[in-house]
Amino acid sequence: MDLYSRQISKLIEELSGLPGIGSKSAQRLAFHILNMPLERVEGLSGAIIEAKKNVRYCSQCFTLTDSELCPICSNSKRDKKTIMVLENTRDLAAYEKTGKYEGVYHVLHGAISPMLGIGPNDIKLKELMQRLQKDVNEVIIATNSSLEGETTAMYISKLIKPTGIKVSRIASGVPVGGDLEYIDEVTLLRALEGRIEI
Amino acid sequence: MDLYSRQISKLIEELSGLPGIGSKSAQRLAFHILNMPLERVEGLSGAIIEAKKNVRYCSQCFTLTDSELCPICSNSKRDKKTIMVLENTRDLAAYEKTGKYEGVYHVLHGAISPMLGIGPNDIKLKELMQRLQKDVNEVIIATNSSLEGETTAMYISKLIKPTGIKVSRIASGVPVGGDLEYIDEVTLLRALEGRIEI
Repeated sequence: MDLYSRQISKLIEELSGLPGIGSKSAQRLAFHILNMPLERVEGLSGAIIEAKKNVRYCSQCFTLTDSELCPICSNSKRDKKTIMVLENTRDLAAYEKTGKYEGVYHVLHGAISPMLGIGPNDIKLKELMQRLQKDVNEVIIATNSSLEGETTAMYISKLIKPTGIKVSRIASGVPVGGDLEYIDEVTLLRALEGRIEI
Repeated sequence: MDLYSRQISKLIEELSGLPGIGSKSAQRLAFHILNMPLERVEGLSGAIIEAKKNVRYCSQCFTLTDSELCPICSNSKRDKKTIMVLENTRDLAAYEKTGKYEGVYHVLHGAISPMLGIGPNDIKLKELMQRLQKDVNEVIIATNSSLEGETTAMYISKLIKPTGIKVSRIASGVPVGGDLEYIDEVTLLRALEGRIEI
């Protein structure tokens, strides 16, 4: 016999398909949702479907947005000649939160990974190269500091170099407030290699 | 300026209103949902609203179900003369998973808590007393082993005693496989008080 009625089982099943949500959390979430007032449940259900239906890629930088151009690309105060290349929209949000970067972005939606069979054509790289045909001063590569991120950074850098546009890579090293004792050796070596004169 | 477009912000906001989901997890979930195929998103959104709209209380035991009587109350093999009283449907599912309990249940939907202003009239206690007017042999109180759960157990026990129906409380003690060293003193004392001859 099923523990829960069909509708509840279905809800638990759908919720446990989400990342980081196991069967226990899915149960807890399901009962929380069943106890919420109907209008809040409609809000949640509606937000999910509306976001999925209306969100698309910015035609310039390919971040997720709900209009033709994202708020950053359509902001006249942003420096369109500096493009930061990122793996996904969450990384973009992380940089945007610093409030200090004044250029624009380019979201690749992935990174090159021979292991997972993801090649240069599977990410928004062609689209980046097209943007470089306009007047661009610098491309800052801010892919992750992982094997895939580094591979992608190398690949993009080799592709752009012949155009004469400046290409840079964000620094990798000890995080601010990080205790050397707890930091892995690769990072420590990176920090040493990347040392700057003071 | 907003980090995300309106639809994405709305989705993140709705998700972060769920228990155990902070703003980082809500972001991660939102982008996962945006990357899911549309039919899976419709499945999730639909399951949420359908469950909320169709799920109601079983007219006998008040567990959450989608028909007049829950599968347990409508099962002729279950012993209707033994009623286990629980705080919520999740606790019911936990006992039901043991597969050993053959009686029926009564879900209170809460526990008496003077601190939170929850009194006997705020939980399904009147409904339990009504059920006892039929032929019942035993009421097993399985509220949590918390202050509220214990208070509720005491209250119910005092209420039922005069009717002559047998009232019992599930045992509290050291969990199976539990290492005494890591168990709190209150539990250790409970286990001692509740010792049984072997």
